[in-house]
Amino acid sequence: MAQVSIKDNEVDVVIGVLHADMTSFMEEWRPVFSRFHLIIIKDPDLKDELRIPEGFNLHVYTKSDIERVVRPSSASLLLSGYSCRYFGYLVSQKKYIISIDDDCIPARDSDGNLVDVVTQHVTNLTTPATPFFFNTLYDPYRKGADFVRGYPFSLRSGVTCALSCGLWLNLADYDAPTQALKPGQRNSRYVDAVLTVPAKVMMPVSGINIGFDREMVGPALLPALRLAREGNLRWETVEDIWCGMCLKVVCDHLRLGVKSGLPYVWRKERGDAIESLQKEWEGVKLMEEVVPFFQSVRLSRAAVTAEDCVVEIAEAVKQRLGPLDPVFARAAQAMVDWVKLWKVVRTQSPPSVA
Amino acid sequence: MAQVSIKDNEVDVVIGVLHADMTSFMEEWRPVFSRFHLIIIKDPDLKDELRIPEGFNLHVYTKSDIERVVRPSSASLLLSGYSCRYFGYLVSQKKYIISIDDDCIPARDSDGNLVDVVTQHVTNLTTPATPFFFNTLYDPYRKGADFVRGYPFSLRSGVTCALSCGLWLNLADYDAPTQALKPGQRNSRYVDAVLTVPAKVMMPVSGINIGFDREMVGPALLPALRLAREGNLRWETVEDIWCGMCLKVVCDHLRLGVKSGLPYVWRKERGDAIESLQKEWEGVKLMEEVVPFFQSVRLSRAAVTAEDCVVEIAEAVKQRLGPLDPVFARAAQAMVDWVKLWKVVRTQSPPSVA
Repeated sequence: MAQVSIKDNEVDVVIGVLHADMTSFMEEWRPVFSRFHLIIIKDPDLKDELRIPEGFNLHVYTKSDIERVVRPSSASLLLSGYSCRYFGYLVSQKKYIISIDDDCIPARDSDGNLVDVVTQHVTNLTTPATPFFFNTLYDPYRKGADFVRGYPFSLRSGVTCALSCGLWLNLADYDAPTQALKPGQRNSRYVDAVLTVPAKVMMPVSGINIGFDREMVGPALLPALRLAREGNLRWETVEDIWCGMCLKVVCDHLRLGVKSGLPYVWRKERGDAIESLQKEWEGVKLMEEVVPFFQSVRLSRAAVTAEDCVVEIAEAVKQRLGPLDPVFARAAQAMVDWVKLWKVVRTQSPPSVA
Repeated sequence: MAQVSIKDNEVDVVIGVLHADMTSFMEEWRPVFSRFHLIIIKDPDLKDELRIPEGFNLHVYTKSDIERVVRPSSASLLLSGYSCRYFGYLVSQKKYIISIDDDCIPARDSDGNLVDVVTQHVTNLTTPATPFFFNTLYDPYRKGADFVRGYPFSLRSGVTCALSCGLWLNLADYDAPTQALKPGQRNSRYVDAVLTVPAKVMMPVSGINIGFDREMVGPALLPALRLAREGNLRWETVEDIWCGMCLKVVCDHLRLGVKSGLPYVWRKERGDAIESLQKEWEGVKLMEEVVPFFQSVRLSRAAVTAEDCVVEIAEAVKQRLGPLDPVFARAAQAMVDWVKLWKVVRTQSPPSVA
């Protein structure tokens, strides 16, 4: 890992909490998280009181905070389940956000060392990305690596990286059909690499383990596509996949980079994929429309901020996908509402929201 | 590695020989190469007699063979140095070709096992590629892996893979400036992954360690861009980089896949990068024109074979790059000549050339 100087106060770790007893989660993460400020968002549907061990610098937000800040907006309906974390992105004041699902614990690398997800995500975000030409030796900025022969020198300075997508050991992020078909499959391959996902290439961004530059692209991480029967298991959701494709389009348009690979988290087992199958098919069907849309959407030169970009994408969603399924029209409206909300919160004085 | 049934007689291993004493090279590779037919092309500039150990199934081609087959064409001028291997591609009758530089020996994987480059390249070539959407868990067809959540089911059957680009341990494939700047840098990171390079994404294909489907794209692997002061060190050449970008455009147009990653070879040290610097700058300068050209060139629907594609690319090279530097006009002509030669050789009866 390249050496980066992280100012700890430039990072918020945002955890959306779907399981009230956070004891084991927090203890497992203590070596990594104790240096940073944590934003804990309690799923508004979660009734039990949170159990959080002592010794962390954190702020907990609950249903009443969400309602106070978000009430005038349709977004409050969208902030349950995994999507409650978006509220944390909204109220954070930091440059970088790292977000990890609450059913993950730290992974170990090939040498058995605990993976510090925060440092790796921040390393990914603070070293350049290279979206305009593929480097076969992966991340050229990593210690011991470089640009290979034939890589144009004019592209070697790279661009700012805005999104870092981590991976998963043990239970990988498969959809319900795949998980149901291969219930015993576990991911044990630690691939020691980070790469820039090239410009104009679409990808399924998983929300399980990500880091991003909130100041650059924060408003593009938003709750928008909510399935009618979305549940509290990852394979029952596509909200993060939608958000990730929106974000990739924004990054491509603004000439920002997206990386994928390290860091890994260890994902614990839970849930029964076969029970989820019926719910998931809706998401599976939608992806057949969603992917070609995001592969072809193009933004105008007038879009120069993430907010601008989201509004343009929302308009295209409304026009091109809206007629296909009401879920898309709702997503388009939610995107517009979220950008408005983001602007309102940004113009308020910090103490009123955080 | 996924299980593939390789028919050994579907593979030619092509070695362009720049060093007359092949004893140690062949002995190192014996465990891997002894099952396969080898095509050995002696660099026409190499004066000494080849020394090849017993016990291999091979055919050696020398300057007189090249002159006999290629004489009427400008291509004979281009078939010295590393480019002599293209003659092997021309005369091969097999479906798959694996080609390795003669200063490489087998690498070992993370568990210390000898890497069988042929089996890994053939595995890459015989399992589908996925160029139209990025799979964050790398090769979805590998044992223990799959498509991640959000990957459209309609894209999961993939497309035929036509090119497999392997990597290098120890001395990586850097250009002369990088090598001169970091003379002690060695690549020791074994990244246990294969990925599809997405469609429309350009990359620097190194000729050091590749496998390809000769029946599908053979004529697109051709000697074309020869630097005025090209030498016998890899970092003094860009012939393979040019060829690789040409090939990537062909694959994208024909909806074929290109993979990068495993297998690794161990690249031995030789040469003095600082001495090569003056030569290399010509290649470095050219890449600034070459990359934008290949990123933007588009082929017509009438181009349905690799030959058609090469001819269309050559015409675009002549028109768009030709005025910039005479080396490009020569490359365009060489491409057209090579396709003609390819067709002539294909129509001759096998015994006259092999």
